[in-house]
Amino acid sequence: MVQPPIRIAIAGALGRMGRQMAEAVQADPRLALAARFHRPSSVGDGLASRDEALAMTDVVIDFTTPAASADLARVCANWGGPALVIGSTGFDAGELADIADAAKTIPIVRSGSFSLGLNMLVGLVERAARALAPENWDAEIFEAHHRHKIDAPSGTALMLGQAVAGGRRVDLDAVARRVRDGVTGARPAGEIGFAVVRGGSIIGEHSVSFCAEGELVTLSHAAGDRTMFARGAIAAALWVSGRSPGEYDMRDVLGFDR
Amino acid sequence: MVQPPIRIAIAGALGRMGRQMAEAVQADPRLALAARFHRPSSVGDGLASRDEALAMTDVVIDFTTPAASADLARVCANWGGPALVIGSTGFDAGELADIADAAKTIPIVRSGSFSLGLNMLVGLVERAARALAPENWDAEIFEAHHRHKIDAPSGTALMLGQAVAGGRRVDLDAVARRVRDGVTGARPAGEIGFAVVRGGSIIGEHSVSFCAEGELVTLSHAAGDRTMFARGAIAAALWVSGRSPGEYDMRDVLGFDR
Amino acid sequence: MVQPPIRIAIAGALGRMGRQMAEAVQADPRLALAARFHRPSSVGDGLASRDEALAMTDVVIDFTTPAASADLARVCANWGGPALVIGSTGFDAGELADIADAAKTIPIVRSGSFSLGLNMLVGLVERAARALAPENWDAEIFEAHHRHKIDAPSGTALMLGQAVAGGRRVDLDAVARRVRDGVTGARPAGEIGFAVVRGGSIIGEHSVSFCAEGELVTLSHAAGDRTMFARGAIAAALWVSGRSPGEYDMRDVLGFDR
Amino acid sequence: MVQPPIRIAIAGALGRMGRQMAEAVQADPRLALAARFHRPSSVGDGLASRDEALAMTDVVIDFTTPAASADLARVCANWGGPALVIGSTGFDAGELADIADAAKTIPIVRSGSFSLGLNMLVGLVERAARALAPENWDAEIFEAHHRHKIDAPSGTALMLGQAVAGGRRVDLDAVARRVRDGVTGARPAGEIGFAVVRGGSIIGEHSVSFCAEGELVTLSHAAGDRTMFARGAIAAALWVSGRSPGEYDMRDVLGFDR
Repeated sequence: MVQPPIRIAIAGALGRMGRQMAEAVQADPRLALAARFHRPSSVGDGLASRDEALAMTDVVIDFTTPAASADLARVCANWGGPALVIGSTGFDAGELADIADAAKTIPIVRSGSFSLGLNMLVGLVERAARALAPENWDAEIFEAHHRHKIDAPSGTALMLGQAVAGGRRVDLDAVARRVRDGVTGARPAGEIGFAVVRGGSIIGEHSVSFCAEGELVTLSHAAGDRTMFARGAIAAALWVSGRSPGEYDMRDVLGFDR
Repeated sequence: MVQPPIRIAIAGALGRMGRQMAEAVQADPRLALAARFHRPSSVGDGLASRDEALAMTDVVIDFTTPAASADLARVCANWGGPALVIGSTGFDAGELADIADAAKTIPIVRSGSFSLGLNMLVGLVERAARALAPENWDAEIFEAHHRHKIDAPSGTALMLGQAVAGGRRVDLDAVARRVRDGVTGARPAGEIGFAVVRGGSIIGEHSVSFCAEGELVTLSHAAGDRTMFARGAIAAALWVSGRSPGEYDMRDVLGFDR
Repeated sequence: MVQPPIRIAIAGALGRMGRQMAEAVQADPRLALAARFHRPSSVGDGLASRDEALAMTDVVIDFTTPAASADLARVCANWGGPALVIGSTGFDAGELADIADAAKTIPIVRSGSFSLGLNMLVGLVERAARALAPENWDAEIFEAHHRHKIDAPSGTALMLGQAVAGGRRVDLDAVARRVRDGVTGARPAGEIGFAVVRGGSIIGEHSVSFCAEGELVTLSHAAGDRTMFARGAIAAALWVSGRSPGEYDMRDVLGFDR
Repeated sequence: MVQPPIRIAIAGALGRMGRQMAEAVQADPRLALAARFHRPSSVGDGLASRDEALAMTDVVIDFTTPAASADLARVCANWGGPALVIGSTGFDAGELADIADAAKTIPIVRSGSFSLGLNMLVGLVERAARALAPENWDAEIFEAHHRHKIDAPSGTALMLGQAVAGGRRVDLDAVARRVRDGVTGARPAGEIGFAVVRGGSIIGEHSVSFCAEGELVTLSHAAGDRTMFARGAIAAALWVSGRSPGEYDMRDVLGFDR
């Protein structure tokens, strides 16, 4: 028996991410592009109104703005559906509270990055850090980005540091070693080190090494382009459809226990 | 409250691994070296007889021969203890049956490799393979060893292939691509590829890459020397002491579910 | 004293490479885009005729077809200039003879790949292979490409193999080891090994490792996009302008002796 | 016609390096171990006196102390031979002057590291830096060492930085970027960046990446054990025998022009 395709609506359909999402949905036989909407009441040019769109879909994919996403979450919760995949970033506390509230009624996947690979890396790093004792296994985080990046370490590198610290049940700030220069002394056990490279057009490379006497485990991710975000959002939409109410992230989609 | 140290006996105490294990046990404050024995009834020069040794210990670490290990497992099961950590390799079916039998009465950790890092790698690879869909994520296994190695791919590379295949619930033999040369055609989804390097004195490097459109996750291990095996055996001894009867491996010690 | 910019004409100006080249020339203050032509006598829409274009330039950049490039070389040689940078590929023997003939009168840089990085890699590999004795240093070539590539090893990997073989003054075919599977025996000294990975959307990675007892030298290149070819053609144009007649390649541009 | 083996004497024959060198010489059919000496007048137990040793050899390999090496250089120069391979480190200005003086009469290879691979890396990096324009190619140096190392970046990493700076004819101190943390701003062209990892028992890894828009060249070295130093000293001895007077280093042995 063939599953009927899951019906998807795209919010912010005229934006760059909205267009990419629509293309990716259309390319996937497990999904049907049921509706595209932009502002709640913009119509024409193949756009539905928001309310029309919600009425005919199982999951809305929303990469828009914090305010628009929080508003959409409230509306969907009031209607008792559809489910939501939210990729907007930069929420304030009130907007986050709105989304948490909505998640009591509908299932929502929200993430700051929809890269499946990067979320997999974070999950595996946390898993490894739980089992590899800090007194034997020195954790070192490496990241490389293009020459235009203006801060260091990258947000993702810090998130990986949090994953190591979380797995070890320590506070990252207490053990992070962000730079080494000059006479540093021997490396204390438990430290989490960071190393940074900047150059050329490197889109983003991250690795975490666990270094012991005589052996080394390294877990890494390299990003090449932005199509990975659409693929992750689609995986989230497939996973969230028909799920119990709650606020989830990509590590749930990937099946990691918390 | 301080835990009293776990009492360890070393089997095969006059062999290379036996000596190394004894040193490693003595260096660890959580353990006490309670006895060393070689053949069941060799005594003198600091050696106990086997029966004396068993009477005074919580865990025996045994890197000897298949026949000696199977025999020791039977004896320990008859006595109702101590627990066993077995690092011998090359068992025949009868010896394996003896060990499985003994594991109904006492807890036994048995592994072909006590490297914590390598077992962690295998566990993480299996975990990643479960969640990264084969139609999007191409799995490729790379290994490098010294110039004296006479076969390819390495046993560990094949074990990593099994971990990918297991996570995907497919049969490795049906999807393994062991070589690529000449006109190969495009890579079929689901294939598990192998690449082999031989040179110099490389002790052993293994990596598994999951390659998608626009992103790449790579998990790897590098071995530098043999001290890692003693560290793994000690982790196994700490874990197995006081555990329920059963036959376990290093992935259990690392906390992976099966 | 400021140098006046070198005047560049772009052949095949309406093609994809022609457009990219024109953009790259306009972005570089050391160059002036003097003329664009497509077919010898197409004019209008900002295109000059070929003869007009040749009359007003120092260097023509030509990424067109073998026949068109060979023809252009003959014409430029008859006129006594301008210099040529040729990126067309797939020449037959007659066309190569025409270009060699023209190079008696004008300077021509011709290459199958204008990546500066890749040509640098080839030059360094040849240089290293000359000095690292094959009886101590095992040479291994690794390449990774996307899942759509239909042959193996890549042409570039074979070119790197030629560079190692050339540095060692041996014949690649006599020492290449293209696959390893099963019982291979120990690695013979002098062998040049190849290892191949296929997956995802990897644009192209190549590395050459020289592996000795206790140490390893690895030289590698990773390609991310196609802008590198325009940058290399511009480096070639700057280098060839005012040079003595002769047929050159990118390793000459990079200053390697032959 | 077979070449007669080159006759080698080992200075400091009772030290750790002296013993290793003697073993390595005996294992090489191109060399004959003609004599071992320790202090100038210690004899017995297979040791010659220094003067006996010098009388019967083509090359002395000397990994001893600065004072002893400077003294040996003077003596050899007075005698008009043999040639010298000096691996002592930590010379003061007077000792360096003595060696420079001796090198007017005899050929001397002196180096702070006899790793052929590391010296090859330094030579290739300098070569690449000459040709890869700093405005397009960002140079980044990475190094990893064991947890016991007390300073950063490593001396070798700084030597690689000097090689990049030398190839570009700039002053390293003016362009080195030793750490990046917080809001760094975009990366200035011409900068030479350093990144440092410390962990486990890593013996020493170094790499230099040249990062451009859309491509990346990386040159690297990994050290696994100390046998590489003996192999380099032997290569130096073979190279220096019969050479014109002068003070040379390992890059001369590897055939790099200066």
